Amino acid sequence: MNFKMAESIRMLSKNTVKFIKSLHQKKFRNQEQKFFVEGEKSVLEVLNSDFRVELLVTTTSFFDRYSKLINSSDAQVIIATQNQLENLGQYQSNDSALAVVHMKPNSAFDFPENNFVIGLDDVRDPGNLGTIIRIADWYGIKNLVFSSQTADFYNPKVIQSSMGSFTRVKFFYAELDKVFQEWNVPVYGAFLDGENVHEMKQISQGVILMGNESNGISEELAAQVTDKVTIPGFGQAESLNVAIATAILCDNFKRLTIG
Amino acid sequence: MNFKMAESIRMLSKNTVKFIKSLHQKKFRNQEQKFFVEGEKSVLEVLNSDFRVELLVTTTSFFDRYSKLINSSDAQVIIATQNQLENLGQYQSNDSALAVVHMKPNSAFDFPENNFVIGLDDVRDPGNLGTIIRIADWYGIKNLVFSSQTADFYNPKVIQSSMGSFTRVKFFYAELDKVFQEWNVPVYGAFLDGENVHEMKQISQGVILMGNESNGISEELAAQVTDKVTIPGFGQAESLNVAIATAILCDNFKRLTIG
Repeated sequence: MNFKMAESIRMLSKNTVKFIKSLHQKKFRNQEQKFFVEGEKSVLEVLNSDFRVELLVTTTSFFDRYSKLINSSDAQVIIATQNQLENLGQYQSNDSALAVVHMKPNSAFDFPENNFVIGLDDVRDPGNLGTIIRIADWYGIKNLVFSSQTADFYNPKVIQSSMGSFTRVKFFYAELDKVFQEWNVPVYGAFLDGENVHEMKQISQGVILMGNESNGISEELAAQVTDKVTIPGFGQAESLNVAIATAILCDNFKRLTIG
Repeated sequence: MNFKMAESIRMLSKNTVKFIKSLHQKKFRNQEQKFFVEGEKSVLEVLNSDFRVELLVTTTSFFDRYSKLINSSDAQVIIATQNQLENLGQYQSNDSALAVVHMKPNSAFDFPENNFVIGLDDVRDPGNLGTIIRIADWYGIKNLVFSSQTADFYNPKVIQSSMGSFTRVKFFYAELDKVFQEWNVPVYGAFLDGENVHEMKQISQGVILMGNESNGISEELAAQVTDKVTIPGFGQAESLNVAIATAILCDNFKRLTIG
């Protein structure tokens, strides 16, 4: 272990355990304006991102492997065992690290010209939200906007299922109808009776709006949709999961942007 | 409650509880050649399918609502409470029914001319398998073939996440390399260095082969792939979830079949 760092390394205290466990709940995350990230891949991604890491709970082996990266951050380092890490977080198995990280402010961004924004109207399942963030990152759609009833971005399950992509997107929570009115760009909404995305022509920008898992896009927001779009079905399944549908729309829209 | 049926209706016995609970495990499902299906949507789908339902554990209200459909099956009916149903299955909430159903034999099918077959090489997560079955059903790709290490089709989580689509697909488990050699059709494998699916020309039939969540397509099976294909990425995510990738390939292939 690096001697210089070793001076400032602490062991895990009861208070720190209690603090980190409180961050499993949205109420305490919001109060503290902090959240946690666990597992090798996600912790490495967050250390390499513009998020500010306050605390890093790490096994000695993870610390030794990544001491250079860890030293370059301002994080307070705490050494822990695998058992302690697994007790702190949600992973069944974690022999690497867990980071406590500062939230970013909920700041609106301007519409990114000639690109797309994913809008989510009450997508409530954290696994779906995390998967959608990963898809957005794959397709280079870096901007997302969420209704207030959409799952919490900082929920540990969202962080986990985004597979590190949560570090590379911009987002804010807002009243979507007001945002769309202000932006004044095409809003593509996923409906069962819209234009077949396989038959659409070249497009250049807009919002890809996805609705709630059970109810789809709300009536109020449907009024803001300028273009209804549909994923063609060829069989008998009644619907697709919202993350699957988002992926298919992103894939078609990126194809149509270039094509 | 229908009088004619009421004569043959039993209450839930300890032995039946024990039997149904054993079906949570693959070992006992295989021994009994039976599995279970729970929740309103899935139970209605299985009652309307060509699966043979042996036993239907139902609340009185579900029975009353669907007595005609239930009477038309050969299922033994057992009345239970919501609590009992939730104790038997995996759903947190189930106020409808749970069915014990006969497995189908593991019979190979011929390659369906001018269509696609989804091949899965060790896709191990039951949620991914169920989601892929739902996607296959959406795209009218009714035939699937699985390596022996792929998740068990009859796992309750597969049934649940397929959202009823498990009743509408054909499948078998086999040594995939032998099957592909026999079929002698194009095998499209998802790799990171294949042809961009957005640039492919019209295609008509073949296998869409997807690999394991961590390791992708195995080396032995890669030798059977005739066409490597790639989903173009525009951002920094390293990969897509296997179910998401399956959906995007199915969507592109269906577009290219018609186009």
